[in-house]
Amino acid sequence: MLFYNKLQETISKQNSLLCVGLDPDPAHLEGKDVASFLKSIISATHDLVCAYKPNLAFFEAMGPEGLKILKDVRDVIPGNIPVIGDAKRGDIGNTAAKYADSLFNIYGFDAITANPYLGKDALDPFLEYKDKGVFVLCRTTNPGASDIQELSVDGTPLYQIVAQKAQNDWNTNANIGLVAGATHPDDIARLRGICPDMPFLVPGIGAQEGDLEKATKASLNIEKSMAVINVSRGVLYADKSSSFADAARTASEKYREQINIARGM
Amino acid sequence: MLFYNKLQETISKQNSLLCVGLDPDPAHLEGKDVASFLKSIISATHDLVCAYKPNLAFFEAMGPEGLKILKDVRDVIPGNIPVIGDAKRGDIGNTAAKYADSLFNIYGFDAITANPYLGKDALDPFLEYKDKGVFVLCRTTNPGASDIQELSVDGTPLYQIVAQKAQNDWNTNANIGLVAGATHPDDIARLRGICPDMPFLVPGIGAQEGDLEKATKASLNIEKSMAVINVSRGVLYADKSSSFADAARTASEKYREQINIARGM
Repeated sequence: MLFYNKLQETISKQNSLLCVGLDPDPAHLEGKDVASFLKSIISATHDLVCAYKPNLAFFEAMGPEGLKILKDVRDVIPGNIPVIGDAKRGDIGNTAAKYADSLFNIYGFDAITANPYLGKDALDPFLEYKDKGVFVLCRTTNPGASDIQELSVDGTPLYQIVAQKAQNDWNTNANIGLVAGATHPDDIARLRGICPDMPFLVPGIGAQEGDLEKATKASLNIEKSMAVINVSRGVLYADKSSSFADAARTASEKYREQINIARGM
Repeated sequence: MLFYNKLQETISKQNSLLCVGLDPDPAHLEGKDVASFLKSIISATHDLVCAYKPNLAFFEAMGPEGLKILKDVRDVIPGNIPVIGDAKRGDIGNTAAKYADSLFNIYGFDAITANPYLGKDALDPFLEYKDKGVFVLCRTTNPGASDIQELSVDGTPLYQIVAQKAQNDWNTNANIGLVAGATHPDDIARLRGICPDMPFLVPGIGAQEGDLEKATKASLNIEKSMAVINVSRGVLYADKSSSFADAARTASEKYREQINIARGM
């Protein structure tokens, strides 16, 4: 099944645009076993989300063993829920093909994130997996995003040029999405104008203090547009005691509802 | 010791700017054990190089076991030879900190490659390791590099803006270098004009058919400038038979000499 359709089905069935980001940080786990922690989070939230998004950095920082945990945890996510491997890779063709092999074949991600700085032929090895989704970094949530992304290319900010290229030149397999940070809802609205049909992955809610209501509305301001609203720390570490799984469920219910109110559901 | 000094010492001692890229691809190994293969390559070439550059994608494509091989192989590289972890990571601060932790602490790389699209605060977690080097992607070797990197920002190509920012705004710890592909020697010369003192990492020689002589001269066209010229496939797969290690040594000698002729040594 195409990623786009799988995502759409799960959004409808679970009435949710909430994606829970899996960023396990031992500094916040107070001695809990990482794999067990994440499996408990998944068990407590899987009927409330439209996707999960493991962030590879947090697994890589645990060494080779961390990648085993990633594989193990990914395999317990119910098959109907899309899993977005957040790796933000970007490299020349033969190397990008290896990253794609790793992310799609070894970890079985339904979609990934990728960096546009190297241009189309560096994205192609990912895009060639037609049933997979590729969220291209466009407007990120960090304070320094403006350093490069807002540079003016003949009057148009670079991040909008990236969106234009994604929309007009790169999306031959109709499997591109955009990463559009919730910390800049006005920019999300501009991107939605450029890319009316693309799924948007919207990080920045919760710890990063993006505006949930504005970001949700901006990312859905065209009929039938689709967005995945990610929360990581705000769910994982809602409570650091032994009640963490219950707290993660409560937080997920709250975020799902706030998003649904914003989109008028 | 600072990466810059360690690199300089090894360049002098081995009279070499050659970096051998470690991109192990089972498709080219004809059944050879990956770790043994790479250890033989290192054993046969370590007195001829100024650095090694493992490309993480090739290890990741072997699953969690591949990362164990990476760690194992990295640990047999003689301590005086800098190791550049080619991972091209780029993510927001708390995630970049995890990538830095992985690359510098778990794998003990002396330097890494990083992507500038997210701006300075996404590079800072790497740059804060003052004794480590951070090669920022600037002008890459792939055909599609021009899609984004040559966009005109008020008349200046984006890749030159990246170099200007690296030189003037980002390099507070004096540990930035640039990735400047050998396939565009004229652009390397322009970058050297912007960043006279930075070490350049120059990929694209060998399989990618960059011009060794022009690229070497362009990257060294200012007195005391420093460059690392990378060859991966041209050394690793110089001969696919059981004589591969001898062939890798012969190829490394040839590349080292050609580079030395180009730089007048």
